Amino acid sequence: MEKGLLLYEGKAKQIYATDQEDVVLISYKDSATAFNGEKKAELAGKGKLNNEISSRIFLKLKELDIPSHFIERLSEYEQLVKRVSIVPLEVVTRNKAAGSLSKRLGLEEGTPFDQPLVEFYYKNDELQDPLLTEEHIQLMKIASVEEVAEMKRQALRINELLVSVFAEMDIDLIDFKIEFGRDKDGSILLADEISPDTCRLWDQKTGRKLDKDVFRRDLGNLVEVYKEVLQRLGGNQHV
Amino acid sequence: MEKGLLLYEGKAKQIYATDQEDVVLISYKDSATAFNGEKKAELAGKGKLNNEISSRIFLKLKELDIPSHFIERLSEYEQLVKRVSIVPLEVVTRNKAAGSLSKRLGLEEGTPFDQPLVEFYYKNDELQDPLLTEEHIQLMKIASVEEVAEMKRQALRINELLVSVFAEMDIDLIDFKIEFGRDKDGSILLADEISPDTCRLWDQKTGRKLDKDVFRRDLGNLVEVYKEVLQRLGGNQHV
Ligand SMILES: Nc1ncnc2c1ncn2[C@@H]1O[C@H](COP(=O)(O)OP(=O)(O)O)[C@@H](O)[C@H]1O
Ligand SMILES: Nc1ncnc2c1ncn2[C@@H]1O[C@H](COP(=O)(O)OP(=O)(O)O)[C@@H](O)[C@H]1O
Ligand SMILES: [Mg+2]
Ligand SMILES: [Mg+2]
Repeated sequence: MEKGLLLYEGKAKQIYATDQEDVVLISYKDSATAFNGEKKAELAGKGKLNNEISSRIFLKLKELDIPSHFIERLSEYEQLVKRVSIVPLEVVTRNKAAGSLSKRLGLEEGTPFDQPLVEFYYKNDELQDPLLTEEHIQLMKIASVEEVAEMKRQALRINELLVSVFAEMDIDLIDFKIEFGRDKDGSILLADEISPDTCRLWDQKTGRKLDKDVFRRDLGNLVEVYKEVLQRLGGNQHV
Repeated sequence: MEKGLLLYEGKAKQIYATDQEDVVLISYKDSATAFNGEKKAELAGKGKLNNEISSRIFLKLKELDIPSHFIERLSEYEQLVKRVSIVPLEVVTRNKAAGSLSKRLGLEEGTPFDQPLVEFYYKNDELQDPLLTEEHIQLMKIASVEEVAEMKRQALRINELLVSVFAEMDIDLIDFKIEFGRDKDGSILLADEISPDTCRLWDQKTGRKLDKDVFRRDLGNLVEVYKEVLQRLGGNQHV
């Protein structure tokens, strides 16, 4: 597999073409960003931790019959995935109130919900990722009614599995963000990453935050925290 | 009908008890507010214009079989309405992009929609009236699934009628906000007001704004504009 042209560079990853039309290489960066890019830092080792964590989570999901773009981890910073056309939605699933939702609705952080909540945000840095209703998604022709239903169905199923994966690691999955793409047949496929950058993970015993809130809220050393998440996932990387 | 105790004072109206348990008196104020109360002014005559405009619109809706809280206009500034328990939602129906939605989604003002869009905002000054999805409404137990469906159904029907009422006045109804309440039987009933404070009204020929945007955006004399709306509605008030 040859690493080709840089196709796209985002805040956390670079996407390279490969010698296969429908396969791209993701290279994780050591950058941390928050608040729509307003807060930034370079944190040595973060990229390889997220590459390994996300690879392990996508493998677990695969074992549990959740299809995704993931093919294989190639190297410390790199993985191969199926190329998709990303649906510009951040699909957020929440088990307890936290972060922007707590502020938005005036709910104390940690308030549990009767049922998991699925929200769609428009993936658009310029507009600062606004919340969308399903009607907005139709109006903007971002996805069809059926695609929205499919993403919601998959998000809830992924939530169920991730809750138990993390519970085995004594971690409470508060919420997480996923992205979907359309593969070459037009089917909706889980893409992007699942890592402490995109999940809220609270230690079940101490309540300690094991995710990007450590960086957002200056709660400690992000790289050390991500190492702990990887270790609990069964990884043995000593960065 | 006796005017009793002041039960509640909002930004635009006061609500008084009457000698009938299930009837309240609404007294319109001359206050104009915008941006969640950040911009304020006293504009002599505004209250009586909105009282007469809203009364005329609710009467027209009644003729068209839309039930509401409206009973009768009592005096220049006052009207009698059925007392309801207000559902804390601002139900916004839009025919074209404007205002906060244009900013939120990056749509040029005046962009028409294929279908009218109904949105729900949480009526909560402290939280600055955040947009809610239907799932948020359930989670917050603000209204039942059936009530949300009923409010949406009514909003779309009211929109249809208001669009033609205003079209007869050479006015384009861009969007409007309504509030619903639960009457003593628990049924959903249209309440509050429908006036240039709560609608976006554009002159069909000139595009001139005939609504509160005149105040929000300093486009001219609000009272003169509201007088014109009342005249086009068949009112003959010379304030
Ligand atoms: N399988 C895939 N095919 C194509 N693009 C993808 C795939 N998975 C993720 N992407 C996209 O890669 C880009 C780079 O990721 P990232 O650095 O996280 O970007 P961002 O700054 O937009 O969050 C994102 O636009 C993401 O949606
Ligand atoms: N029929 C009704 N019964 C009880 N309350 C009502 C009725 N119609 C409107 N209200 C409420 O009267 C209050 C005063 O109106 P307003 O000054 O517009 O308030 P606000 O500042 O909240 O917009 C609002 O809370 C509104 O919801
Ligand atoms: Mg990203
Ligand atoms: Mg009001």
